[in-house]
Amino acid sequence: MIKAGIIGSTGYAGNELVRLLMGHKDAEIVWYGSRSYIDKKYSDVYRNMFEIVDEKCLDDNMDELAEKADVIFTATPQGLCASLVNDDILNKVKIIDLSADFRLKDVSVYEQWYKLEHKSPQYIKEAVYGLCEINRESIKGARLIANPGCYTTCSILTIYPLVKEGFIDPDTIIVDAKSGTSGAGRGAKVDNLFCEVNENMKAYGVLTHRHTPEIEEQLGYAAGKNIKIIFTPHLVPMNRGILVTAYANLSKQVTYDTVRAVYDKYYGNEKFIRILDKDICPETRWVEGSNYVDVNFKIDERTGRIVMMGAIDNLVKGAAGQAVQNMNLLFGLDETQGLLQVPMFP
Amino acid sequence: MIKAGIIGSTGYAGNELVRLLMGHKDAEIVWYGSRSYIDKKYSDVYRNMFEIVDEKCLDDNMDELAEKADVIFTATPQGLCASLVNDDILNKVKIIDLSADFRLKDVSVYEQWYKLEHKSPQYIKEAVYGLCEINRESIKGARLIANPGCYTTCSILTIYPLVKEGFIDPDTIIVDAKSGTSGAGRGAKVDNLFCEVNENMKAYGVLTHRHTPEIEEQLGYAAGKNIKIIFTPHLVPMNRGILVTAYANLSKQVTYDTVRAVYDKYYGNEKFIRILDKDICPETRWVEGSNYVDVNFKIDERTGRIVMMGAIDNLVKGAAGQAVQNMNLLFGLDETQGLLQVPMFP
Amino acid sequence: MIKAGIIGSTGYAGNELVRLLMGHKDAEIVWYGSRSYIDKKYSDVYRNMFEIVDEKCLDDNMDELAEKADVIFTATPQGLCASLVNDDILNKVKIIDLSADFRLKDVSVYEQWYKLEHKSPQYIKEAVYGLCEINRESIKGARLIANPGCYTTCSILTIYPLVKEGFIDPDTIIVDAKSGTSGAGRGAKVDNLFCEVNENMKAYGVLTHRHTPEIEEQLGYAAGKNIKIIFTPHLVPMNRGILVTAYANLSKQVTYDTVRAVYDKYYGNEKFIRILDKDICPETRWVEGSNYVDVNFKIDERTGRIVMMGAIDNLVKGAAGQAVQNMNLLFGLDETQGLLQVPMFP
Amino acid sequence: MIKAGIIGSTGYAGNELVRLLMGHKDAEIVWYGSRSYIDKKYSDVYRNMFEIVDEKCLDDNMDELAEKADVIFTATPQGLCASLVNDDILNKVKIIDLSADFRLKDVSVYEQWYKLEHKSPQYIKEAVYGLCEINRESIKGARLIANPGCYTTCSILTIYPLVKEGFIDPDTIIVDAKSGTSGAGRGAKVDNLFCEVNENMKAYGVLTHRHTPEIEEQLGYAAGKNIKIIFTPHLVPMNRGILVTAYANLSKQVTYDTVRAVYDKYYGNEKFIRILDKDICPETRWVEGSNYVDVNFKIDERTGRIVMMGAIDNLVKGAAGQAVQNMNLLFGLDETQGLLQVPMFP
Repeated sequence: MIKAGIIGSTGYAGNELVRLLMGHKDAEIVWYGSRSYIDKKYSDVYRNMFEIVDEKCLDDNMDELAEKADVIFTATPQGLCASLVNDDILNKVKIIDLSADFRLKDVSVYEQWYKLEHKSPQYIKEAVYGLCEINRESIKGARLIANPGCYTTCSILTIYPLVKEGFIDPDTIIVDAKSGTSGAGRGAKVDNLFCEVNENMKAYGVLTHRHTPEIEEQLGYAAGKNIKIIFTPHLVPMNRGILVTAYANLSKQVTYDTVRAVYDKYYGNEKFIRILDKDICPETRWVEGSNYVDVNFKIDERTGRIVMMGAIDNLVKGAAGQAVQNMNLLFGLDETQGLLQVPMFP
Repeated sequence: MIKAGIIGSTGYAGNELVRLLMGHKDAEIVWYGSRSYIDKKYSDVYRNMFEIVDEKCLDDNMDELAEKADVIFTATPQGLCASLVNDDILNKVKIIDLSADFRLKDVSVYEQWYKLEHKSPQYIKEAVYGLCEINRESIKGARLIANPGCYTTCSILTIYPLVKEGFIDPDTIIVDAKSGTSGAGRGAKVDNLFCEVNENMKAYGVLTHRHTPEIEEQLGYAAGKNIKIIFTPHLVPMNRGILVTAYANLSKQVTYDTVRAVYDKYYGNEKFIRILDKDICPETRWVEGSNYVDVNFKIDERTGRIVMMGAIDNLVKGAAGQAVQNMNLLFGLDETQGLLQVPMFP
Repeated sequence: MIKAGIIGSTGYAGNELVRLLMGHKDAEIVWYGSRSYIDKKYSDVYRNMFEIVDEKCLDDNMDELAEKADVIFTATPQGLCASLVNDDILNKVKIIDLSADFRLKDVSVYEQWYKLEHKSPQYIKEAVYGLCEINRESIKGARLIANPGCYTTCSILTIYPLVKEGFIDPDTIIVDAKSGTSGAGRGAKVDNLFCEVNENMKAYGVLTHRHTPEIEEQLGYAAGKNIKIIFTPHLVPMNRGILVTAYANLSKQVTYDTVRAVYDKYYGNEKFIRILDKDICPETRWVEGSNYVDVNFKIDERTGRIVMMGAIDNLVKGAAGQAVQNMNLLFGLDETQGLLQVPMFP
Repeated sequence: MIKAGIIGSTGYAGNELVRLLMGHKDAEIVWYGSRSYIDKKYSDVYRNMFEIVDEKCLDDNMDELAEKADVIFTATPQGLCASLVNDDILNKVKIIDLSADFRLKDVSVYEQWYKLEHKSPQYIKEAVYGLCEINRESIKGARLIANPGCYTTCSILTIYPLVKEGFIDPDTIIVDAKSGTSGAGRGAKVDNLFCEVNENMKAYGVLTHRHTPEIEEQLGYAAGKNIKIIFTPHLVPMNRGILVTAYANLSKQVTYDTVRAVYDKYYGNEKFIRILDKDICPETRWVEGSNYVDVNFKIDERTGRIVMMGAIDNLVKGAAGQAVQNMNLLFGLDETQGLLQVPMFP
């Protein structure tokens, strides 16, 4: 039985991690960390857990936790994990960081986009970017996993095969992404009040959103060169779900079949990636509550471009589900263990 | 492995039954019935099931199904199950009817409230009302289960202990119920369009809703006499969830502790009923996707009344989850098998 | 041209007051008060007002405002208006208080339910309860108007005629009310975040909500005696709208026609109260954005009770619209001036 | 007083037209056409109009209507207006067609994208495309106005100045548009049920949506050549609002100030177009219920592209509001008459 500790268990991603781990037969939670709710019963913070979780919330003591746990999930604001991690801890326990601290290999890019000084740049190099379908083998031996961002997971998986195979010009990529509001976190802000989000649609962080360099870095590896994209996130009045609509110029003559073959090549055996039938567009409702990524594409012969589309549940494949998938890989379990929830509709 | 057939698998309750049975380790679905979608792939009707269910939809042939299945779920409009069932079928297979055909013992009450002639009144007597927490023992030996209505499940379980123990005057009961829109079904009606339901709240079926006599009958058994209540359903702009706010005159002097003791007496050992802590009101978000019923109460000394509150997921405990719970009882399985989903929030 | 000042102009009710007054041909706003946003452009707080309102927010200086304005609206937290008002001010300017400070005639009831010391109880007696359809004549000569609460407006107007005429036993009244989330205000609280409210339904303030004594006092006047009711508010995932479903025991034999005649007697000539056709239930969508109150009722011969229903837009008839209606009465204008918005649907 | 007839008054756009015309001091409605609801009271179809509109719905008799009305609005499915219009009618009455029948100058493009034979191509040439801010002068003398589509209004106005001034390469334009569900109409379809739309986000009509050639034609006039764009509409779980996020390659070195100057040049005096302050993104909530178009842009020096954004209320500026604006122009009224509603929030 894997002993798991969660630092930041009372955010939405933390609570989703609890939900998933409660249904995981080889893992148990030994630490419900939450700086904001120390000594408060977890189920008083998230009443869905009433009579399911009896524990109280504990402080963010990573040293103590490293003694008790086999794996630590940090579902915390940027900067915290980097400030807590050290060699002693990494020698004792696996760390799966749901924040952005170890996602970007270039510390100056991190500091520029996040406006934060990185407290432990010495671990950036060894950290493995935990996008399981792409980095599966490297993940298995890692001590420190940088769990990908929600937008980035959906964006990269939607686009990756066509960049990797050179079907599109990566510098023409435009990612227009739409997210449910749970992605904005549980902090009490006027902008996220019901009446402000409901009956509204807006772009935000235009040209400055922090997931931009993360997508660029990962797709850059696939392209074999540095690339620059446009990434525009939007806030949608729904709880869960990310939809990505991505555009790029085709680099060659293609047909439906040749493009489909590329997606099949990379994802045909992937349990969690569903390549939809021709002309079926991904929709967030069909993946809600599950670890699936639904992808598809449409070729525009009129303009010589392609539209690529993907949908995930931002709290599952975009956060907690992928973190559990990484845990499964780290501990040699079946990668799908605890992650076979059927999407819940409606 | 229990072989299950579903007649009416493409309604919302049918789809939820599929979701739950896919996660049930002792059951498999052998028949996806759907008169409206014969020969269409089930996952083309419900794309959450893509790469999960490969079968096509079949016609409503209960005779053929009775040969293949151990249990048949009928998630169909009122009248259909009563028109299909016969002795031959009942001797071969268990039937769990999610419609109202066998819920009311008095056929004239059925015909009056449902404006339908009952096609097989001879089976009404033997049918067992499948409210598991109350009729557990009778369910176990039944051939035909009348799975309770969504509103009724929530209403009865919220009120039952206080009627049973004579703490309230049953003829003063008022049930003000609020339901998510999935309760209205998947039929294409203007009234259920997004723009008609969203940003709206309304009562409907005031004093005429068909769940009224069902609640009256069941609470009448607890009271030991015929009773008359007011039941008012409301439509809420959300997908899932029923909230019941019920009112009644107290029959005696009570305290929080004496009332709480009554709830504990009936529900203290019930896995799926959670009696909330003092002053915590049930909310639908805390039970979403799960088979839980959250209940609580508040005594009004000023008026000598009590407010009783309950919350369920209408598609789980209010329909498919309770149907699976009944199946578990019928087949001697652990009653919670396949039903331990942690409520999903947000 | 009436010069209006608003203290608390950046809450939802304040913003609605601005919207309505911008369309009022005989009034102009001279003061946009907002302690939280002093010196910030009003249209930076509410961008719907971009290029419509150019003014900046000002402090809550009622003395200065009394010099400049003919009427002051206080759309502020409880206690503020009572702490600012004095004889000098009341001699110069009309005050329409949207808070609860002057709604309850018995200061001890106020202090008990609001847990606040009342700072100017000497003005309670002269303040007029601004429910225009009932207190029209008294309003006209007042200096200080206590603008009714949102729930109370809808509850009282729904029930009033039947209490006044003795058709129901007022001590059996149960008001089950449902409100959109704008009623909870624009404060940054976790409980009002989109993800907490969306896909959820809950009761709150059960048996303790402060609108209870306000309804009791006003309906008590109609009954000619003190009464005690149950009032239960619920939060609904929508922006605007209050729906009231009220129950009471009938005091006499009635028919649809006799009850209808009573509603007609009191409301037949009221522009803003629409008595719906038989069997049509009020719905919040049909009044959204307007000052209308839609009411109806249904007699339950089975139980000897009546169900009374009403719907309003909580920000219009439940707050800003009624405040403008009071202003019109105070200044001798047509009562409907600036309030003839057609309800906006969808 | 202008006498207005509405054919198709019971769709969402028709009802919005009624709402706006009820508040227009120089117009009155003389004909509520609705083939689906003939002889039914209009306020039984749209209960917001109870006690406001007393008329019954009438058949689509354009000949008779041409005798009674000064202007006819056709808010009907594609093909209907083209099948009814003739010289006799056009000589008697102005026609403002809210359908697409006369928007495209090339009848073959119409027939290809709409899969319909055009029944009166002889009027296409004289019809004026009623995008008031761009075609104001031509509108004034027209007999037949092609009222622009909702997506197209928002898309064109967002992009137009930069195409007109040659700041962007028009063949690189990508329009990613998001619409509330009222844009899908009031027809009873499963896809538009509350539970299908709520908690979901999807693209639809990818590369095949009929507003594509309309945008291309109009922006082509600005560019002075034929252009090809990508247009992707998305369905959002909200009632009203369209948000456009558009991308294009810059044709030259630009700064914020030079681009801003171009927007100011074209829109600086336009009442209904609000160019937002630097870095403020348009949001649909800020224009709801009003005829405003909020626009802004952001330059991406990293990629040499520009992001252009716009927001409208699809039922007002995207349909009924623009139709009234066209009526005002046709009849020589103040263009803003009846259209100065302050946006309603929340």
